[in-house]
Amino acid sequence: MHRDECLQLLAAEEVGRVAVMAHATPAIFPVNYVLDGEDIVFRTDPGTKLAAESRAIACFEIDQIDRRQHTGWSVTVTGRLEEITKYDRAWARVTALPVEPWAAGAKQHWLRLTGDRITGRRLGRVD
Amino acid sequence: MHRDECLQLLAAEEVGRVAVMAHATPAIFPVNYVLDGEDIVFRTDPGTKLAAESRAIACFEIDQIDRRQHTGWSVTVTGRLEEITKYDRAWARVTALPVEPWAAGAKQHWLRLTGDRITGRRLGRVD
Repeated sequence: MHRDECLQLLAAEEVGRVAVMAHATPAIFPVNYVLDGEDIVFRTDPGTKLAAESRAIACFEIDQIDRRQHTGWSVTVTGRLEEITKYDRAWARVTALPVEPWAAGAKQHWLRLTGDRITGRRLGRVD
Repeated sequence: MHRDECLQLLAAEEVGRVAVMAHATPAIFPVNYVLDGEDIVFRTDPGTKLAAESRAIACFEIDQIDRRQHTGWSVTVTGRLEEITKYDRAWARVTALPVEPWAAGAKQHWLRLTGDRITGRRLGRVD
């Protein structure tokens, strides 16, 4: 899948999953996100594993799977997580992005996953 | 979420995502799977990253997200991957499990993720 197609799919979705290493074990967290250029921006609560892993290398993934047709696609973004704080130049712009907090928590942390490597592939039958 | 509820959700779904470390970087792969007791069984092609990571610690995740209601749930299974080969006692039983190969490849490798740690949580608004 071409990079442009990956970016279009990333712009159209709202929910993905982030994988990080936590205590030498991979962990996956669903997040709602927004695409900021070629970066993934999402919010998380203080004290969560994800917040603790800021500056870690992470993998973000979205997919759409048709269980009946057994087809679909998957796009991944791999890069470094970084927390955006109010001391960052990007703070005003990033915190104005439409990332609605879903969960009950305050979601005070804004994290950005730099889109260093964006790949996509189609799944399922090749007819 | 209670372990029993997690297992019920795992038994009802067909598609999840596996995260492993590959070359010091987390990677996420969607897989179709079947629950075998408390283990996750899925197939993969020879030569894939997932096949290379057999014996790795992995995290498997399923979720259901209501984008409109901003609610959902997520269940994760963390444990060690192992490849089931024809020399294993479990070979006949595992290869009889209804894990249909979706993709074009042969999916000759059968992998099992031992369900050492199963957790689930509800996402979204607490009303």
